[in-house]
Amino acid sequence: MNYMQYSSKLLEAAVDEFARLPGIGHKTALRLALYLLKQDKEVAQGFGKTIIRMCEEIRRCKICQNISDTEVCMICSDSLRDSSTICVVENIRDVMSIENTHQYRGLYHILGGIISPMDGVGPKDLYLKELDKRLEQGGVREIILALSTTMEGDTTSYYLFKRYSNPDLIISTIARGVSVGDELEYADEVTLGRSILYRTPFKSQAT
Amino acid sequence: MNYMQYSSKLLEAAVDEFARLPGIGHKTALRLALYLLKQDKEVAQGFGKTIIRMCEEIRRCKICQNISDTEVCMICSDSLRDSSTICVVENIRDVMSIENTHQYRGLYHILGGIISPMDGVGPKDLYLKELDKRLEQGGVREIILALSTTMEGDTTSYYLFKRYSNPDLIISTIARGVSVGDELEYADEVTLGRSILYRTPFKSQAT
Repeated sequence: MNYMQYSSKLLEAAVDEFARLPGIGHKTALRLALYLLKQDKEVAQGFGKTIIRMCEEIRRCKICQNISDTEVCMICSDSLRDSSTICVVENIRDVMSIENTHQYRGLYHILGGIISPMDGVGPKDLYLKELDKRLEQGGVREIILALSTTMEGDTTSYYLFKRYSNPDLIISTIARGVSVGDELEYADEVTLGRSILYRTPFKSQAT
Repeated sequence: MNYMQYSSKLLEAAVDEFARLPGIGHKTALRLALYLLKQDKEVAQGFGKTIIRMCEEIRRCKICQNISDTEVCMICSDSLRDSSTICVVENIRDVMSIENTHQYRGLYHILGGIISPMDGVGPKDLYLKELDKRLEQGGVREIILALSTTMEGDTTSYYLFKRYSNPDLIISTIARGVSVGDELEYADEVTLGRSILYRTPFKSQAT
């Protein structure tokens, strides 16, 4: 791009900042920057300050590694939740997804990644020492492995199963099968095969 | 959305800021905020500061109303450009588009909008007084109306033609016709009809 494209270096700098965000190209970045320019100055100032404040003040919960405003996150500090069950997930978006189902009342542990030799991510890069510590402290009866059903997710699940295998600890994994609302003929073979293999006793879905 | 969806108010505030940008929904906003969180603090600080700086320091060129870092923009202050021709456009993105063609060496005038009774935008909302002033100062031989070929664009062009009609001033409009590279059978009827009506003398396109 030649220098004439932007009549202002300030605008160009802002466009470049937007364009480094994932999924945002230069055209979209320009649209976003011009949108902010069109608003009152307070809007853009608020925007910038909120981003800066988030990155300066946010921290990780010292127990589960979830993003939090406080030393211990809202979930870990909620005495109504079942502290004997820990759901192990890859990242905080997974926590949000599971929370949105309103089906789970235990605690979480965020790994911060997933074992992927291709990307050079090994067990050392995950928050496993923190999980070791939680299990050593006792009181945990079950860990639920809620990882993606990909090669990397399965590898990580297997690694965790090996690492934490212990007669006093139940290690479970989330159910895999045909999605609710899906027609059988459109389910892929592997999923359908597994859903037959791991069939469950019939019970009313109303519970 | 319930309050549990975000484990951090700081994150939620940042997501809300991103989500007010045009074309960005809550899912994308969350992805962008988490991306910034993952980077070094300096990246997010730089991002925020660049946005704030742009909105605080940027101004409009006092001649053409283009966005500029200086009182007079780079185009208006370029003595190599033809100051007897003014290309009238709706916004600064149109300036960028025309500049990218490398076919125009005159000056610009940004209207800052387009006459649209439906949206309550009238001539008073455009930078027309500034254009009046430039024409009164003399030296301008031609104005080129480079507005969108929509109802609003045509209305604005007609209004400008009426306002500035004067035997000493050439008022032209950008050519409308079949796009270069288009096949005739796919051109719409109105465009094709006009392109026959306003046919031009044949000359080699190599010039």
